Amino acid sequence: MGKVIVEQSISLDGFSTGPDVTNAEPMGVGGEALHEWMYRDVGPSGRNEEAEALLRTSGAVIVGRRMFDLGVDPWGDPPPFHMPVFVITHRPRDPLPRTGGTTYYFVTGGLEDALAQARKSAGDKDVSVFGGADLVRQFLGAGLVDEVRIHLAHLLLGAGTRLFDGLDPANFDAVESWVEAGPSVTHLTLKLRRP
Amino acid sequence: MGKVIVEQSISLDGFSTGPDVTNAEPMGVGGEALHEWMYRDVGPSGRNEEAEALLRTSGAVIVGRRMFDLGVDPWGDPPPFHMPVFVITHRPRDPLPRTGGTTYYFVTGGLEDALAQARKSAGDKDVSVFGGADLVRQFLGAGLVDEVRIHLAHLLLGAGTRLFDGLDPANFDAVESWVEAGPSVTHLTLKLRRP
Repeated sequence: MGKVIVEQSISLDGFSTGPDVTNAEPMGVGGEALHEWMYRDVGPSGRNEEAEALLRTSGAVIVGRRMFDLGVDPWGDPPPFHMPVFVITHRPRDPLPRTGGTTYYFVTGGLEDALAQARKSAGDKDVSVFGGADLVRQFLGAGLVDEVRIHLAHLLLGAGTRLFDGLDPANFDAVESWVEAGPSVTHLTLKLRRP
Repeated sequence: MGKVIVEQSISLDGFSTGPDVTNAEPMGVGGEALHEWMYRDVGPSGRNEEAEALLRTSGAVIVGRRMFDLGVDPWGDPPPFHMPVFVITHRPRDPLPRTGGTTYYFVTGGLEDALAQARKSAGDKDVSVFGGADLVRQFLGAGLVDEVRIHLAHLLLGAGTRLFDGLDPANFDAVESWVEAGPSVTHLTLKLRRP
């Protein structure tokens, strides 16, 4: 069984999106800067290895319904996942297949249901909790996360959604860490103690 | 002329102290955990090189009056600075010499006055803006900082003082960075573009 991974880009002041998230600006005002490292921090190969490593170990993705609503158009067809994506929602809906290996499945049984379905689908590979922040906090708060991968962009946003707001610090116990330096971002992987 | 350096330990959720800062708990409730890396992350030599490097390049320190009030007793005699410390205050007061090279000087002319006196005193060495968070933000907001050294403790505090709150992101432009990994902390140095 693989790990449950949370992967998020945040600013130095802790925001995972800017303010005023809309369909036109799904990362909020200024929030796209959090992802600039993927396109800017390219190595001698002309590729950004950290960006290419996103989802590399994962066999399934879980997203919140709002993230899906905001993302489905920008992600396009084929979407960047190339694996099953489980959308946690209150409204039942038929699976939505896309090209390139991505199918969106709509799960109405909450976190545990989504995780069970994603695990089954992922097999030995990891399950990636992709967002948004609210979903990430629910998974962290429920003690369901093995590993947090933070891409700490070296900038301030000043406003927006704070990734770690409202969590009980006692439920976040990092027991090991790995760091990779990028020119405009620090990639920090934390292994969490499971309750 | 040396650099103006800000050096702060913060949590993953961006706090530089816990809530309810008092003389009995100058780091706020739970805030001492931010400094645990100094005592826990010792290398094969039995020493923590990053902790020993604190202030190594500095010839003078600037602190806010509240930090001084909270710190003067715990810092004791000899204080850990071993260099002149300039305290920004509204109340004039005679210099307070201590053993081991530390003298507290009380400066009533604000940031620029304190910086001028600290620079003069530091000579070719750096000036370290030590805190608290409010003073750090004033220096950052005024564009007076060359380098920010963040010790990112791999934990959440959940509440307290957010180091970067209320700053204009446009005034924070990190143009170079260096990272050192510790087991429970990531040391991130950012060179800022001066306006």
